[in-house]
Amino acid sequence: MKKVEILDSTLRDGAQGENISFSVSDKLKIAEVLDKFGVSYIEAGNPYSNPKDAEFFEKASKMHFTTAKLAAFGSTVRKDTAPEDDEGLRALLAAGTDHVVVFGKAWDLHVDCILGTSLEENLSMISKTINFLRANGRSVFFDAEHFFDGYKSRPEYALDVVRAAEKAGAKAVILCDTNGGCFPDEIAKIVKTVGKTIKTTIGIHCHNDTGCAAANTVSAVRSGALHVQGTFTGIGERCGNAALSTVIPDLQIKLGYNVVSPDRLALLTKTARFISEVTNVRLPINLPYVGKSAFAHKGGMHADGVAKEPRTYEHIDPKLVGGKRGFIVSEVSGRSSILPRVRSFDGSLTKSSSETIAITEKMKELEHAGFQFEAAEASFELLVMKELGRFTPHFEIDHYRIISSMDSLDGQSFTEKANALVKVKVGDKYEITADEGDGPVNAIDKALRKALEVFYPQLRKMHLIDFKVRVVTSNDSTAAITRVLIESTDGENTWTTMGASRDIINASVIALTDSLEYMLNGK
Amino acid sequence: MKKVEILDSTLRDGAQGENISFSVSDKLKIAEVLDKFGVSYIEAGNPYSNPKDAEFFEKASKMHFTTAKLAAFGSTVRKDTAPEDDEGLRALLAAGTDHVVVFGKAWDLHVDCILGTSLEENLSMISKTINFLRANGRSVFFDAEHFFDGYKSRPEYALDVVRAAEKAGAKAVILCDTNGGCFPDEIAKIVKTVGKTIKTTIGIHCHNDTGCAAANTVSAVRSGALHVQGTFTGIGERCGNAALSTVIPDLQIKLGYNVVSPDRLALLTKTARFISEVTNVRLPINLPYVGKSAFAHKGGMHADGVAKEPRTYEHIDPKLVGGKRGFIVSEVSGRSSILPRVRSFDGSLTKSSSETIAITEKMKELEHAGFQFEAAEASFELLVMKELGRFTPHFEIDHYRIISSMDSLDGQSFTEKANALVKVKVGDKYEITADEGDGPVNAIDKALRKALEVFYPQLRKMHLIDFKVRVVTSNDSTAAITRVLIESTDGENTWTTMGASRDIINASVIALTDSLEYMLNGK
Repeated sequence: MKKVEILDSTLRDGAQGENISFSVSDKLKIAEVLDKFGVSYIEAGNPYSNPKDAEFFEKASKMHFTTAKLAAFGSTVRKDTAPEDDEGLRALLAAGTDHVVVFGKAWDLHVDCILGTSLEENLSMISKTINFLRANGRSVFFDAEHFFDGYKSRPEYALDVVRAAEKAGAKAVILCDTNGGCFPDEIAKIVKTVGKTIKTTIGIHCHNDTGCAAANTVSAVRSGALHVQGTFTGIGERCGNAALSTVIPDLQIKLGYNVVSPDRLALLTKTARFISEVTNVRLPINLPYVGKSAFAHKGGMHADGVAKEPRTYEHIDPKLVGGKRGFIVSEVSGRSSILPRVRSFDGSLTKSSSETIAITEKMKELEHAGFQFEAAEASFELLVMKELGRFTPHFEIDHYRIISSMDSLDGQSFTEKANALVKVKVGDKYEITADEGDGPVNAIDKALRKALEVFYPQLRKMHLIDFKVRVVTSNDSTAAITRVLIESTDGENTWTTMGASRDIINASVIALTDSLEYMLNGK
Repeated sequence: MKKVEILDSTLRDGAQGENISFSVSDKLKIAEVLDKFGVSYIEAGNPYSNPKDAEFFEKASKMHFTTAKLAAFGSTVRKDTAPEDDEGLRALLAAGTDHVVVFGKAWDLHVDCILGTSLEENLSMISKTINFLRANGRSVFFDAEHFFDGYKSRPEYALDVVRAAEKAGAKAVILCDTNGGCFPDEIAKIVKTVGKTIKTTIGIHCHNDTGCAAANTVSAVRSGALHVQGTFTGIGERCGNAALSTVIPDLQIKLGYNVVSPDRLALLTKTARFISEVTNVRLPINLPYVGKSAFAHKGGMHADGVAKEPRTYEHIDPKLVGGKRGFIVSEVSGRSSILPRVRSFDGSLTKSSSETIAITEKMKELEHAGFQFEAAEASFELLVMKELGRFTPHFEIDHYRIISSMDSLDGQSFTEKANALVKVKVGDKYEITADEGDGPVNAIDKALRKALEVFYPQLRKMHLIDFKVRVVTSNDSTAAITRVLIESTDGENTWTTMGASRDIINASVIALTDSLEYMLNGK
């Protein structure tokens, strides 16, 4: 089992993805889970181009990492500049990391067009940079930018670039498909050629512009690369980088390479989801291995098959990556997918029980009205309980009034307020109260709990942890159907409920009501 | 230039993706654009397992397609059943399409474990099915389900399956990587072996569970497959199918195959976005070729480079797929990305002009407060105009009050209302009015326009076409920051504005105000 080392660039190349913006505290949190997962190197930022990154390196230097080593990223020296006078290289040293990654040009087009210098001078810039950083005690990874395009344009020159990096003492030479335009077979051929040219460790860095980043990375490793760069969830410039959450299990589970220990591999899903939460970018549900749908079966035949023998529709055991098999409840899934969940309430029910049929019908009816149970398990369980006659309503909302107001102060600034009044009925008792909040949903949430806690003090330990809004049909502007998902916790368990309505407040109140009832029904 | 034919399965396999639910009218709309784009076949549903699909085929039979042919999908005959007595096959014929796709088992594990029959009987079921459908005038595509897993388990049997399909007269035999667990090199090897075994056209159908669906599809074509199945945007069971929006330009632009005419290829982006709209699933921004970020440059160096020579950071000309180069405005992008847009207001400005610096600073400040300009070009332009002193405010909101109310009718049903009152100032005149709507945002939108149309009748031709809500920091539940994006149109142009606030109403009003001002400022 050959060992492959991983360099995660979520915090550097990942930050170049559209909609991505990390705070220093985000970066520290992500570095921590990457270390726990067990990547070898964390490429954490470009201290020259981004001042926030300099702040990060200062704070990170006080953290204790068990597995990962931090690396700062920068460019080769500018032309006609001595390394010690180069601001970029000075910032790179100031980051204080033992390891640095520098990129240099390997495509003659770039040397000519972007650097505006000669091919010879570019080689000398690469050598000077690596020598200077090594003289300052750094271990240097050399990213040969656009290596594959460079090789296709002028093979001997691209090879001169990696030879220069090797001669200057780079710890590894990383071949980059910067524009992401390559295919696996050409990657294989070129990596093998480089392997015959240098003895230094070869690395691979792929972008996804042809949809082949994972395949290209795997192809490079099978052709001799032993250092893999990517971003954990695949974020990055344009179409993104190779997703390490795909490449790592591809290499380890499917192809037998040694990347991380099996117990760390089982943290894959958790790590990807955490990074995606902190990044505040939805993890694509169909991302291989770690997406919400990766092991979720929807087609009726698929659900039937996996129940008989998992291998029939699963290429690996989800547990290996910390994932879980799921059955998606929906109109096309049929009763097979609903059944395991219905049976958790009543083991005697079958696919053809009238209760199973009634639940399927009710679900279809609600889905037609804009509800969607796939992401709201708790609301689905309440529906099942209601159909089975096992649901006890604990309260009714008699009415509410919410007042949102804004007053201009001086034409420039303003003050806004949200107040809610609510009257609830519990048994034959009524309680009316009010509260205020940040926006109307927060106000009604607070008022509703305040009223209910009079009857149910146990609600005090429950609170909302997430609130998501989705406009379902968007061709009717602000009058479209709004679906609200609410995630709640009692400190131990978490559950998700849902509401849908043309009115966002009403949708929120439906989801809140489900969330409260779910807890009060002892789930 | 070898011709490759495309079968799009968005409406069948795509419907098996999580969160996907098509109405009949959705399906008709999608079939129409697929035909316009120029796919050869549209696999439009399984009339036996989904009654909605039967309705679709009835309606679709009245449509006129210029390029694409419709195909209904189903399974081989059940064991111990005569084809004419098989409900599935009867439903397949009832769909009334000239072309049908039937899948059969090619993996001994499935024959044994799922069908519970003998290997011999499975071959006979395949032959009987194809013969029966052909006898009824259908042209038959045979999907060899799990072909690659079958071949790896028992190569001779898998080959017997494709031989049986060929002998029975299948128009093409499609090799399916149903579990999505393969890699390009094994696909290549196995497809070549099949090519030596049968003369019938070979097809390929890949899933993305190792992140290699596109690479595997391309690899199969290069090994002799001339029929490609996938879903246009990659949706499908678990991790999805090969995305045709990736595979088609890979094959045609990068590898020289003949798939569709260049003018139809230029519809690629538009088609993918339309399908994604109708599907109501966000198109992944980093989807190759067609995602919003596919040709968007964020890193400062990348933006600089592309301005000098597009090839430096673009693997193809975006125009070939109907895409557009973009420069993303954000803190890491630096002034290079902002500059082209600032210069559209004042050509004399440079990267180091004080105005450019002031705009960058203001933008960073607002992004810190939860705004994000990447998706809201109109709000960004207003910011630039304000900083350049070219913005004329056309109104002020003095105050508003919104009342959202709900009253229970009988403990079961309820009635809800949203009313808004607003007072605006235009010059030294005031106007106060009110309106009601579906939810508070719709109510304030209507009231605000009503007040402003007194002064600006041209606002009558403007209306909202989309409204999106995103909760930005979600660890603080309902009190998190809410970002609202609003897309407006005057019938000719469309523009997007944004607001962010802890209060969703306030965020919406900020976005509405920008939208109205954008139009009133003559943009």
